[in-house]
Amino acid sequence: MAGALRAVNIGLGDFLSPFRDGGTPFVDVDWKPPAQGDPELIDILFDLTAGFRDAHGASLIDQANQTGLRRILAAQPVVRRVLPARELIPDFDENVILHAGPPIEWENMCGPMRGAILGAVLYEGLAPDEAGAERLLHSGSVVCRTNFSRGVVAPMAGAVSRSMPLFLVENETAGNVAHSPIHEGSGRALRFGVSRPPVLARLKWLERTLAPALDRALAAAGGVALKPIMSQALLMGDEMHQRNVAASLAFHRSLAAGLVDAAESSDDLKGIVSFLTLENEQFFLNLAMAAAKTAMDAARGIPHSTLITAMNRNGVDFGLHLAATGDRWFTAPSLYPKGLYFPGYSEADANPDMGDSAIVECYGVGGMALSAVPSVAHLVGAGNLMESLGYTFEMNHICVGRDPDLAIPNCDFAGAPAGIDVRRVVATGILPLIISGVAHHQAGIGQVGAGLVTPPMEVMNKALRAFHRMAVK
Amino acid sequence: MAGALRAVNIGLGDFLSPFRDGGTPFVDVDWKPPAQGDPELIDILFDLTAGFRDAHGASLIDQANQTGLRRILAAQPVVRRVLPARELIPDFDENVILHAGPPIEWENMCGPMRGAILGAVLYEGLAPDEAGAERLLHSGSVVCRTNFSRGVVAPMAGAVSRSMPLFLVENETAGNVAHSPIHEGSGRALRFGVSRPPVLARLKWLERTLAPALDRALAAAGGVALKPIMSQALLMGDEMHQRNVAASLAFHRSLAAGLVDAAESSDDLKGIVSFLTLENEQFFLNLAMAAAKTAMDAARGIPHSTLITAMNRNGVDFGLHLAATGDRWFTAPSLYPKGLYFPGYSEADANPDMGDSAIVECYGVGGMALSAVPSVAHLVGAGNLMESLGYTFEMNHICVGRDPDLAIPNCDFAGAPAGIDVRRVVATGILPLIISGVAHHQAGIGQVGAGLVTPPMEVMNKALRAFHRMAVK
Repeated sequence: MAGALRAVNIGLGDFLSPFRDGGTPFVDVDWKPPAQGDPELIDILFDLTAGFRDAHGASLIDQANQTGLRRILAAQPVVRRVLPARELIPDFDENVILHAGPPIEWENMCGPMRGAILGAVLYEGLAPDEAGAERLLHSGSVVCRTNFSRGVVAPMAGAVSRSMPLFLVENETAGNVAHSPIHEGSGRALRFGVSRPPVLARLKWLERTLAPALDRALAAAGGVALKPIMSQALLMGDEMHQRNVAASLAFHRSLAAGLVDAAESSDDLKGIVSFLTLENEQFFLNLAMAAAKTAMDAARGIPHSTLITAMNRNGVDFGLHLAATGDRWFTAPSLYPKGLYFPGYSEADANPDMGDSAIVECYGVGGMALSAVPSVAHLVGAGNLMESLGYTFEMNHICVGRDPDLAIPNCDFAGAPAGIDVRRVVATGILPLIISGVAHHQAGIGQVGAGLVTPPMEVMNKALRAFHRMAVK
Repeated sequence: MAGALRAVNIGLGDFLSPFRDGGTPFVDVDWKPPAQGDPELIDILFDLTAGFRDAHGASLIDQANQTGLRRILAAQPVVRRVLPARELIPDFDENVILHAGPPIEWENMCGPMRGAILGAVLYEGLAPDEAGAERLLHSGSVVCRTNFSRGVVAPMAGAVSRSMPLFLVENETAGNVAHSPIHEGSGRALRFGVSRPPVLARLKWLERTLAPALDRALAAAGGVALKPIMSQALLMGDEMHQRNVAASLAFHRSLAAGLVDAAESSDDLKGIVSFLTLENEQFFLNLAMAAAKTAMDAARGIPHSTLITAMNRNGVDFGLHLAATGDRWFTAPSLYPKGLYFPGYSEADANPDMGDSAIVECYGVGGMALSAVPSVAHLVGAGNLMESLGYTFEMNHICVGRDPDLAIPNCDFAGAPAGIDVRRVVATGILPLIISGVAHHQAGIGQVGAGLVTPPMEVMNKALRAFHRMAVK
């Protein structure tokens, strides 16, 4: 073989151009250095792997992560009630509006989140019009707080005010609770930053007609267990972020007979049944989110654990919690989803990724379980069956376990990837996959698409560095 | 390489034993001769391929099959009413009981079919007890006819009598209609040969409470289109033979609000809603069967077409219709399903395959679409994702087309295999796959399992021979 030049390229594709241009045969190995080639992160990962051992030499971090994983897998979320937010959250003052994601001031919010907050102020009757509402927010008479600070999760802008009904979801295993509002349905919606009169009228119908009936039906049934529904829905083409068709129908059937007694009139019943079965195929999303939050909260506050217990976005920043670092937010600018845009819209119209909904990915469904749902993979531009299988296999690299009760039929019933370890994310460069709706960057327009997005890598690096600093203290 | 004996074996595995035993390296090619190596069938296939051409040399058979395929794909089945059989079928005399499969006399019926027929006689009040019913059947005072002779399809034993409510399903494209009874639900059931009082009481509830309410709701809605439901259900883990969870919920939601007005009382409504959403996950099977029958009937009576337009079983014989041979039954002994048995039961308890339900496989769903449902493949012992994909790819070899409106997500949204060509079945030896429930071979016991089964090859050979005789005349 002497005389014939042949090349093997490992990593940087740029080195290949002379071979590509010159016709020299080459093999290109798609390799990336660990931890983005960052010497400080490599040192931290080495230190976290070699150090932090107990008297028997076992890793304190691995043990803590296994504890977290056990708590996540053991969670049994049950939705028990639907009550006004002010009854569930005692310190929910009249002048407070909650929002999705990590903390952000009114002045710094993106368009659709502002639109949603203004809508919530109008919904509460705190101002007669948008201009009045804006004055209250600007002056600080009305203040914004995170959903997370009150145990709430809500999709997209996530605007929640004290009159809105919230689900009470209890993790029967650990006893902790979480809340989420009722999903509004499709079309123009507050969560995408639209506050027109029909949007607010539908929210009032949720408050006055649907919520009391649902609450009576839930109370009569003693609650509805959510994990069995999630488990069934994974067999039925839902990943429970972008698609909740089966889960919503399965939830409805749990209460279908009970709603006959719980509704105040036949007309109410018809409206409720239509909303739950036909008009709102994403109804279950908010229940999946609250369920996931009760599971992830069970793993909060475990010393030495590098598990990610929350991911959310306020449309400007992406926020992250680690199990060991409790309520401390790590943030970095939120990315733009890539996927499908509605006719007439493009990425130029998109707001950066937004919402508390990525809590379902922390739990192992949504984008983490993409192989369960080739129809969603198809929709968000993630390709065919084999590609969607590849995505979930990749997610296994960054998780410490699998949830056998969330079995994915297309993975031959292997469980969904569970327990994202920030060490693995930083080491491999593989980021959790999130399936997300896309809001227009201006208030008042609404949803313009849906797609796949990841956290920014920087938020992972920040969290790992902070964990390390805390651990070595 | 001289001196080293190496072997290639093509076909019969028996020839390999000396090499296997002796340690000689070999390659084993899994090959079967075409048409089971039968010279007469090979001659017929050659004749059907080379002959029967129009003036331009195009195959009359291929053209006829394309006509049949177009009619099958174009069918738009809509369920319009639920009415007593006697109102839908004018010549349904009082002393007639219908049964599944090709024609068979009372004396020759299997245990579960006898049990079901006796139950239907009691249901109609024609005899005070089973002994009395048996006398009527033995004497010929009560006679048995096939469901197919009256445009009906019904699962398993398929016993249908004149008071039972039947669906009226209309193919809007061609105008033809078909009927099926309401699916009874799980547990002990008439279709598995059980006629105990609770079984008959449930059938009376279907007749007196469910059917009138469903009929009113259907009439108010102007009917419910069934193909869009089937299309959705294929995205949701149903293959519509062994699994109809999503399709049943999707059907219910089409009528959910209408049923509020259609039910006579709140108690009736609660019972109806519970039955449709919770108690009967196979509810849609009978609608899928009637829908499939309207599509397949649209392809009946096309001269020169070798498409299979019906497959059914009476628990003794398997029956087959070809498009070109109209109402003529080709039969051969029915096979035993292989799959999963309920605890305490085994293949020794099984009755041979039974029911009109294989009409859904003629249409391209059920076992033909096994790759849509790894959970069913898992259940019936058909293995993992890759194996279930392989089954559907194999089914494409024996079909003349695919139905783009029955897209299978796991096949990257390729359509379900449509239009089974008996020539291809005989030539390749690949038999259509049917997913079936398994009845105990004795009356009164019920379902003992579920599994995969095929038609007997002989019924395919008989039909091909008869087609050829008719064609050369």
